[in-house]
Amino acid sequence: MTSISAAQTRTQQHRQQFPALANKSYFNYGGQGPMPQAAIDAIIASHEYIQLNGPFSSQVNAWITQETEKTRQAIATELKATPETITLTEDVTVGCNIALWGIDWQAKDHILLSDCEHPGVIATTQEIARRFGVEVSTCPLMATLNEGDPAAVVAQHLTPRTRLVILSHILWNTGQVLPIDKIVEICSQHQGDRPVQILVDAAQSVGLLPLNLTQLGADFYAFTGHKWMCGPAGVGGLYVRPAALLGTDKRPPLQPTFIGWRSIVMDSKGQPQAWQPDGRRYEVATSAFPQYAGLKAAIATHQQWGTAEERYQQICQLSQYLWQRLNELSDIICLRHAPPQAGLVSFQLKDRSSLHAKLVQFLESNRLMTRTLVDPSCVRACVHYFTLPSEIDRLIEGIERFCQQS
Amino acid sequence: MTSISAAQTRTQQHRQQFPALANKSYFNYGGQGPMPQAAIDAIIASHEYIQLNGPFSSQVNAWITQETEKTRQAIATELKATPETITLTEDVTVGCNIALWGIDWQAKDHILLSDCEHPGVIATTQEIARRFGVEVSTCPLMATLNEGDPAAVVAQHLTPRTRLVILSHILWNTGQVLPIDKIVEICSQHQGDRPVQILVDAAQSVGLLPLNLTQLGADFYAFTGHKWMCGPAGVGGLYVRPAALLGTDKRPPLQPTFIGWRSIVMDSKGQPQAWQPDGRRYEVATSAFPQYAGLKAAIATHQQWGTAEERYQQICQLSQYLWQRLNELSDIICLRHAPPQAGLVSFQLKDRSSLHAKLVQFLESNRLMTRTLVDPSCVRACVHYFTLPSEIDRLIEGIERFCQQS
Repeated sequence: MTSISAAQTRTQQHRQQFPALANKSYFNYGGQGPMPQAAIDAIIASHEYIQLNGPFSSQVNAWITQETEKTRQAIATELKATPETITLTEDVTVGCNIALWGIDWQAKDHILLSDCEHPGVIATTQEIARRFGVEVSTCPLMATLNEGDPAAVVAQHLTPRTRLVILSHILWNTGQVLPIDKIVEICSQHQGDRPVQILVDAAQSVGLLPLNLTQLGADFYAFTGHKWMCGPAGVGGLYVRPAALLGTDKRPPLQPTFIGWRSIVMDSKGQPQAWQPDGRRYEVATSAFPQYAGLKAAIATHQQWGTAEERYQQICQLSQYLWQRLNELSDIICLRHAPPQAGLVSFQLKDRSSLHAKLVQFLESNRLMTRTLVDPSCVRACVHYFTLPSEIDRLIEGIERFCQQS
Repeated sequence: MTSISAAQTRTQQHRQQFPALANKSYFNYGGQGPMPQAAIDAIIASHEYIQLNGPFSSQVNAWITQETEKTRQAIATELKATPETITLTEDVTVGCNIALWGIDWQAKDHILLSDCEHPGVIATTQEIARRFGVEVSTCPLMATLNEGDPAAVVAQHLTPRTRLVILSHILWNTGQVLPIDKIVEICSQHQGDRPVQILVDAAQSVGLLPLNLTQLGADFYAFTGHKWMCGPAGVGGLYVRPAALLGTDKRPPLQPTFIGWRSIVMDSKGQPQAWQPDGRRYEVATSAFPQYAGLKAAIATHQQWGTAEERYQQICQLSQYLWQRLNELSDIICLRHAPPQAGLVSFQLKDRSSLHAKLVQFLESNRLMTRTLVDPSCVRACVHYFTLPSEIDRLIEGIERFCQQS
């Protein structure tokens, strides 16, 4: 008992660092994470440094380069990857686009998506299909939430022409965690015309799952800093496996598409001479650099609380508690029949799915932040490692009150 | 005399709003503009609003949409364009990439660049050449700084296969203003296999020249908010002429390339249904939204001082003064023989061009901010409408001291 209460006191103290948590119960980590004050302060301090010493000067330019590399290093350490494999991007979708447009598509190549991917990524594959005569199909993973083997479903849908499989590590609608390691193995053993590469949409997994991207083996792993990492909106990244960046005997390197001064090495006349040797080749030009400091500070804040493994264990305990309490409500059905594998818990109003938007609105007016999803129609509540059981209790009460009223 | 001194007092007061100007003499507006305090405050206030009411909630999401549209409107008003023609981007280079990758390139199509374009844009055209078999060539505009007609040079270099001409409105190295209106006319009258489109790199012109993009007639006009507009790094835009966005009988619409939720309209199942009908179709996903408020505030700050035309006149007076004073120095050669047409003044150390970097370093250590350029090898000093003649005098003294010492 003492240790549980000590842990709760520690979390209570930790939460003081997040101004957004002071006036609400927050369950939208999958939408955007609250920034720790240290992240906001780091952004403001960066603006001040830049104005004081520049904004454009050799001192500031050197400082921005240095700060950028520190942020890259902080991300790499958190993901157990080397800094050379990390490209800084504006968001997860830009990361997916870098991978998608950098492949030397041939007509009749095949892209396999799950049926739970984000509309922005789906739209990109449709445009690639239109431009290059590539074929796109989906495999039914939504149905494997409670039974079946998603890796086997992917295996069944590979064709001799499959070049790219696109999957979310955690499905944003149902919260299911896909066995990316197994799927990587299946793809690498697939006997097709060309090697099958894997692009992982990690919008929901980075900052939630303990990760080792070096071991995982995915070719492209696109993520954002503003969801589970609690950094500012506008900074994300893309991991590109060295073999995918540089190419192999069987596969050309991933080419840069959107290109700028950050992508290239210049000669003495300022002319482009070569690509940067590492993940910088997919970066373009001037970004909201002060935000980089914000993400670095957010990562450091989480590390103060515990390791990635400890945070994930805590998330699972809390999401199991939320799932159990939801299951006690007679008007609610959780999409998942077993305890959640991560921090996303999706549920429906029994026989009244048309009221999901109203429920979310009612909850928001009571300062309980959740969101709807349209396919499957549901409400999603997320818990982070610093969520309090008392917040979950308040959410349950809010849902109960709504159900009684409507 | 009274009115001159009244104007100077007004400018002195106006300058109080820019913290970066307090401790230095600043001549790097072409690199990055100093932010007015109102812009920094707007960014901080946005972060606070988002944390207080979200970060992810229907209230915050609606507010971000609204704020985004206000920023788009502020930009459109300043450029005399309609908001539908404006795409918000991370920077000018992303805007150039959107135009470059959205064209349906055919093998042997021809891209014509000036010989003064930015390396990032050059590298993009080289990659497009490699992927699609497009031919890229340059025309010599650097040599027209003091004699000759740049429009005539462009005309001479168009071929029957030219599909795109890429030009900076103001050349970043020599400060020359190109007659884009004349070049648009030449391109529109060119009898080639397909219509010639024009992509303008407006890195140096937006926030400096009074513009009317609706009248100018360029198809694509890519700009950034963080140079002459003095907004935060990380926000820029792209103007796409309606006929270029929607296509004509002779030319398909500019297609979106990097695509995300902001590009598309979704159906009731959340599936992509269509492109957004306007410039939003080239926007991708989550950006550093608080920075948008910063750019809007910066634009408003300039408008308080005077109209775009008044600011431009002031810039020309000040750059002429700088150019005259530089001409008085026996060790200095200005690249341009006539007074500058805008706010960029480039000059060389007579017979000692190897010392340009040392000069810039010396000046920076004396809190006089300039920069070097490598082609042509020179030093560039920029003046904005709020530059003080006394700052220019200090710069001249600094250059004199360097020349005496070395």
